[in-house]
Amino acid sequence: MNTLVNQDDFIRALMDPRRVALVGVSSNAKKNTARPLLFMRKHGFSGRIYPVNPQHDEVLGVQAYAALSELPEPVDHVFIMVAHDLVEDLLEECATAGAKVVTVYSDGFGESGPDGVQRQAKLVQRARALGLRLLGPNSIGLANIASGCIISVNAAFAADDLVPGHVSMVSQSGSMMGSLLSRAAARGFGFAKSISVGNEADISVGEILNALVDDENTHSILLFLETIREAPILAAALRRAYDAGKPVIVYKLGRSELGEVLSRSHTGAIAGDDAAMGAFLRAHGAIRVRTLEALFETLPMAEAYAKDAVPIHDRKPRVAIMTTTGGGAATVVDAMGLMGLEAVSPPVEFVERMAQRGLRLRPSPVIDLTMAASGVQYQDLLEQLLQAPWCDGVLSVVGSSAQFHPEYAVRPLIGAHRPADKPLAVFLAPEAGTSLRLLYEQGIAAFRTPESCADALSAFLYRNAPEPTDVGGGVPIWPADVPKQGPLNEFEAIQVFDALGICTASAQLLQGCQQQHDLPYPVVAKICSRDIPHKTEVNGVRTDIMTADALQEQTQDLLADVARRRPQARLDGVLVQSMERGLIELILGYRRDPLVGPTVILGAGGIAAELNQDYSIRLAPVGLSTARQMITEVRLTRLVRGYRNLPQGDIDALADAIVRFSHLADLDSPVVEEAEVNPLFVQENGVVAIDALVRVA
Amino acid sequence: MNTLVNQDDFIRALMDPRRVALVGVSSNAKKNTARPLLFMRKHGFSGRIYPVNPQHDEVLGVQAYAALSELPEPVDHVFIMVAHDLVEDLLEECATAGAKVVTVYSDGFGESGPDGVQRQAKLVQRARALGLRLLGPNSIGLANIASGCIISVNAAFAADDLVPGHVSMVSQSGSMMGSLLSRAAARGFGFAKSISVGNEADISVGEILNALVDDENTHSILLFLETIREAPILAAALRRAYDAGKPVIVYKLGRSELGEVLSRSHTGAIAGDDAAMGAFLRAHGAIRVRTLEALFETLPMAEAYAKDAVPIHDRKPRVAIMTTTGGGAATVVDAMGLMGLEAVSPPVEFVERMAQRGLRLRPSPVIDLTMAASGVQYQDLLEQLLQAPWCDGVLSVVGSSAQFHPEYAVRPLIGAHRPADKPLAVFLAPEAGTSLRLLYEQGIAAFRTPESCADALSAFLYRNAPEPTDVGGGVPIWPADVPKQGPLNEFEAIQVFDALGICTASAQLLQGCQQQHDLPYPVVAKICSRDIPHKTEVNGVRTDIMTADALQEQTQDLLADVARRRPQARLDGVLVQSMERGLIELILGYRRDPLVGPTVILGAGGIAAELNQDYSIRLAPVGLSTARQMITEVRLTRLVRGYRNLPQGDIDALADAIVRFSHLADLDSPVVEEAEVNPLFVQENGVVAIDALVRVA
Repeated sequence: MNTLVNQDDFIRALMDPRRVALVGVSSNAKKNTARPLLFMRKHGFSGRIYPVNPQHDEVLGVQAYAALSELPEPVDHVFIMVAHDLVEDLLEECATAGAKVVTVYSDGFGESGPDGVQRQAKLVQRARALGLRLLGPNSIGLANIASGCIISVNAAFAADDLVPGHVSMVSQSGSMMGSLLSRAAARGFGFAKSISVGNEADISVGEILNALVDDENTHSILLFLETIREAPILAAALRRAYDAGKPVIVYKLGRSELGEVLSRSHTGAIAGDDAAMGAFLRAHGAIRVRTLEALFETLPMAEAYAKDAVPIHDRKPRVAIMTTTGGGAATVVDAMGLMGLEAVSPPVEFVERMAQRGLRLRPSPVIDLTMAASGVQYQDLLEQLLQAPWCDGVLSVVGSSAQFHPEYAVRPLIGAHRPADKPLAVFLAPEAGTSLRLLYEQGIAAFRTPESCADALSAFLYRNAPEPTDVGGGVPIWPADVPKQGPLNEFEAIQVFDALGICTASAQLLQGCQQQHDLPYPVVAKICSRDIPHKTEVNGVRTDIMTADALQEQTQDLLADVARRRPQARLDGVLVQSMERGLIELILGYRRDPLVGPTVILGAGGIAAELNQDYSIRLAPVGLSTARQMITEVRLTRLVRGYRNLPQGDIDALADAIVRFSHLADLDSPVVEEAEVNPLFVQENGVVAIDALVRVA
Repeated sequence: MNTLVNQDDFIRALMDPRRVALVGVSSNAKKNTARPLLFMRKHGFSGRIYPVNPQHDEVLGVQAYAALSELPEPVDHVFIMVAHDLVEDLLEECATAGAKVVTVYSDGFGESGPDGVQRQAKLVQRARALGLRLLGPNSIGLANIASGCIISVNAAFAADDLVPGHVSMVSQSGSMMGSLLSRAAARGFGFAKSISVGNEADISVGEILNALVDDENTHSILLFLETIREAPILAAALRRAYDAGKPVIVYKLGRSELGEVLSRSHTGAIAGDDAAMGAFLRAHGAIRVRTLEALFETLPMAEAYAKDAVPIHDRKPRVAIMTTTGGGAATVVDAMGLMGLEAVSPPVEFVERMAQRGLRLRPSPVIDLTMAASGVQYQDLLEQLLQAPWCDGVLSVVGSSAQFHPEYAVRPLIGAHRPADKPLAVFLAPEAGTSLRLLYEQGIAAFRTPESCADALSAFLYRNAPEPTDVGGGVPIWPADVPKQGPLNEFEAIQVFDALGICTASAQLLQGCQQQHDLPYPVVAKICSRDIPHKTEVNGVRTDIMTADALQEQTQDLLADVARRRPQARLDGVLVQSMERGLIELILGYRRDPLVGPTVILGAGGIAAELNQDYSIRLAPVGLSTARQMITEVRLTRLVRGYRNLPQGDIDALADAIVRFSHLADLDSPVVEEAEVNPLFVQENGVVAIDALVRVA
C-alpha cells in the first residue's frame, strides 16, 4: 500500500468525495463520457462537480474549466476520460489540484499488450511519486449510491430505481457490475458503494474490501472476480470482514478452465488455477457461489445467519424441506443433491410432535402441505423446523399462491420467528416478482430459480470460518546434502520427504556398475535423473524384480532404453526400491500457486491422476482436522474407510502425512515450488510414499 | 392402449372437447373445485359446460344438474372432483352420459399407499370395461388455451396473460405445470395444450405426446418428467415427433438420486436409474435440459434449427461468441466449459476477412465489440459467424443496451439473416425483460441466466438423432450346458461371454481335490459360486500364483477363508485363470433397467468402479459407431488413446467387445437381467475379460 496518502483521507476521497473533477467530460449527452455528470445530477450528488473540457465554457449546464489548474478550489477525486497517451501527463495537474485519488477510465494499458503494460507501469510509478492513488486504469468507475456520487460511465446508473442500501460491490468486470446492479435493483436490493477496479494497477480489490469493512453503510459485500491479485491484502481484508460480521459473497469466473496440462507435475493439471483460488477464498472465510444470481440472492441468508450458524465440517449439510408444490420442491432437491446437500426426512419424534400440534406429516424428505395446512399451521411447522436439531437449514417452496396472492403467500414466512442460527431459503416456483420483493424486504432469502436456490444453500452451508493461520509444527529441516536449487532427482526428493517425517519406500541409489544393495526382494528399479520427471514416459521403471541376476539384467535394459529415448538427460544412477503394496493409490501434491501461494492437494493417484477428477485442495500448511476433511473429500478414500467389507486403511497415518507434507510451505531456504508423491500407498498400518518429485525455486 | 375407443374421437374428447361435465364443482368461487368453471368462462370456452352438483340448481351463474344422468345431451369429457371413494361408482354414469374421457382430479389413489394402489387398479379396470379412457387420477387437469377449454384446478390459469400459441406441455407434476406456464407466459411464450397426467393410470405421457405430434396447433412439446412409464409407447412417440420436426424438450427430475447401492452388480450403482432414463431420452431423439427455465428458453433454438443443424458426435461442439460485455460473455463461457462446450477462437482467415469488411478483431474465443462496432458491423459479424464452417453455434451476449435501449439492442440480432443450420443463442447480461420478449417474438432463443443459456446450447448441440433400432448382428447363442435361470457361477458366465465372441482369460474349473490344469503360470485362483457375486468381499481371490505347489496351498487357504465367511454358500469349485495384464481396467456392464429396458455401460473399472463417476451408458444393443462414442466418453480411456507417450490400446477390439456384449439384449431365452465384466483389460492387441458375472431372469 502506498503510504504517502493518509489512509482515512484516501478512503474518503475514493468512496465519498465532496469535490470531483471530470476530465474529458463530453458536452454531448449521448456520449459515454457525458454520463458521470448526468448521473450525478440525476441521483442528486450534493458535492461539487468540476467538468474539465478546454472546448466549452459549460458542459450540460454546468460551468466547465479548460484545465485542472484553473479550478477555483482543491478537489478530492479526479475522473480521467481521455486517450491513454494523455493520461500520464495529467497526473501532475491532479496532484496540484489537491486530488488524492485519480480514477482512470481510459483503456490501452495493461489489458492491451506489451506497450500497454509498459504504459501502465509508468503511470503507476508517476502516481506514486506524486502521492496519488489510482483506481484503474480501464476502470468503468465507482458509485456511492447514498450520496449520489456516481463517478462512472456505467449505463446501469441511468436506472430510475437505484435505491440506496447496505450492499457494496467490487468488480473486476466493469460491465458486469452494471448488469448485476440492474438485476439486484429489480428485486429491491439497495446498494451502498459499487466499485469497478479495472486493471487494479494500484488500488486492489483487497484494499477496497478492507475499506468497506470500515464503512458503516456497508453491511455485506459482493465480489465479482476474474482473478486474484495482491492475495495477502485480500486475505487479510476477507478475515477482517468475517470478524466484523460482514459476509463476503464471491462469484469467480474461470471454473471451467483447464489446469496447466503442460505442468511439470500432475498437481497443477489435477486442480488448475481456479481450484487454488477456491481454496484461498474458502480458507479466508468468503462464501463462493456458482450461479450468477446467487451472488446477490444469497445475501439475506448470509447477513442473517452467518454470524450464528455454525459451519459444518464432518458430514453433508442437511436441509429440511416444506412445500405447497411437490414438483417445485423436487426441482430444488434435485439441484441440492448435485451440490452435495442432503434432503432430510423429519424423525419420528418430530412427526409425533407435529401431530400433537394438529398437523399430520408423512416422514418424507419433502413435507408437502398442498392440501393439508392453514397459514397458521404452515407458520407453526416452519418455526418448529427452524428450531429442530436434526436439520442445518430449512427450505420453503411456494407454489401458485406466490403468483396470485403474494401477501397471503409470504405471510407465514414473514410472520415466523426465525432464530439466528438456522438459515431459511425460499424458492418460488411460479413467476412471482412481488413475492420475491416482499420476502427480501423482510430479510428473507428468496430465489427465482431452483439452481440458484440450491447453489446458495450449498455455498452457505459449506462455508468455512477463516482457517487458523498458525497450524503448528516446526519449519522442516532441509537435508544437508540435497541441493537447494533446480529440479531434484528422486533420491534427493526421497531424502526431503524423509526429513519431513513421511514414510518412503526403502531405497538405495546404485551408481556406475554397482549392483550391491541390502533391500529384500522383490524390488523395483527406476532411472534416477533430475531431467526426467515422468519416468514411465521413457520406460524408466522396472517392477517385480525377484533376484540379483534379474536386477542386473533389468538395470542394463533400463539404462539402454533411457539412453535411446533421452540421450541428453543427466543420469544420477538407478534407484532400487523395495516393492510395496497398498490398499489404494493416492497422489499427494504441493504447489506454490503463482496467485495464492502454497497449496496442498490430495487425490486419487496413479498415472491417470489428472483424469480422475477426484481431489481435495487447501492452502498449505494444513492442520490435522483440515487434513481429515481433505481425506473425506476424495471419493477413492471410501475404499479404505469401511466399504463393502474391505480392509480399512490407516487414516491417522494418512492425515499425519498430509500435514507433514504441507509444511513444505514453511521452508524459505530453499523455496519449494512443486512437490509430489504419486503414488502414496495407503496400507492397513501406515502409508508409504513410492515415487517422489521435488522442484525448488 | 385401450382399443375400445376410436382413436380420433378419444383424442378430440381429451384435448378439444365441446361438451364438458364438471362433477363436484363448487359454488364457492374461492374453492379449487370452482376453478375450472371460472377459468373456462374467463378464457372464453366456446363449448358447453355442465356443472354437476346435487346441492345447487346453478353454480356461479351456470345451470347445474344433480347428476350426470340428468344432463340434457351427451358430453365428451367429464372432470371428476369428488372424494376418492366416490369416483369408481361415477364411471358408469360417465359412460352412460356419452363421455369418452374422464379426468380424475381426486387423490388417494396410487400415490397414497397400498390401499390407494388397489383402488386405482379397480378404477382402471372398471374404466376399461366401460370403454372409457382415464386421465389421472390425481391429475390437476388439462387445458386447451386456444379454445379456452380449461379443465383444470391449476391456479396458473387465473392469469390474464395466457396467450394461445404453439407450445404444448405434458407434466407428471401438476403444480409445476402451472409454474412453468407462468414463467413462460411472462416471457411471451404462447401455449397450445397443457396436460397434467397425474398418476398415469391409463393415459400415459407417451400416448399424449403421440397425439400432440398430430396436433397441428402444436409445433413443439415440453415434458416435465419425474419418471418414465410405458417406455415403448413414449419411445415411439418421441421418434414420431422427431420425424415430424416437432422438437421435444425434456426436464427430468432425479438426476441426483443415488444408484441402487445394494445392487447385486456394480452396474446399477455406477449409473443409477436416472442415467438409464437419460440414455433412453437421448436414444429416441429428445433434448434434455438440466436447468428449469431452459425447458422453455431452448424452444426457439430447437424449433428453428433442429431440423437442419447436423448433430455432432465425434468431438466437443464449438461455439463462437460475440459480445458487448466481456464479463457477461465470460459468465456464459464459464458455464459452457462445465457443460462440455468449447468456446472457439476465429481462425486467421476469418479475422482477415472481417478486417477487409472494416472490423478489426482480436483472435480470442470471445469477440468483444464493446468499443469498436456500429450496429451495422455487429449485424455483419453475426451473419458471418452464422455462416462460418469453424463453429457449430453462435452466442451473442448483450450488455446494458438491452436494458436501456431494447429496440436498438435487438435490432442487429433480429435483422441478421439466420441460416437454418446453425443455432443462435442470446444472453442478456442485465435485467432486460423487454429485450427478452422482443427476441422471442422474432424466434430468437434469449436467456435470462448464463447457466440456462449454456445448458440450452449444450443440450441442443449434444442432441442426438434417434438411434437406429436395428444395429445388426444376430441373436447370441446360449451355451448348451449353462443353466437358463438364477445367478450363474463365474465359469458359466465365462462360457456365455465366450459364446458372444468376447475374449476371456483362459480358465479351468477345479472341483473336489482336483489340482490338474494346463494353464501356464502365473495363475489366479478364484472361488466359483453362484452365491458369491463379490469375491473380494470374502477374500475369495488369490493372484500371482507361480507354481503348482503354491496353487495347492492357496486353494486350500482360499476354501478355508470362504467357508469361514460364507458357510452357507454353494461352492462349485475353484476357478483357475491365466494371469493377464492390461493397460487400463474398464468395467463393461449390462442391465435390464426396469423402466427403459436393456442398457449397456462402459466405465472406469476395478473394485471402486462406482466411485469413479466415469462412465458412458446407452440403450442396448449398440452398433459400432455408438460403441466408439462410448469409449471417448470415458475419461480413463484417454490413457490408451495417445496420452503422454503411453502405449495405445486396441480401441477396435474394445468397440467390438462393447457391441457383442450389448447383444445380450437380444436374448429372449433366457432373458439376461444383469451381466458384468470387471475388469475388462484393454491391451495393446485386444481386450480380455477377467471377472465375469451374469444373472438371468
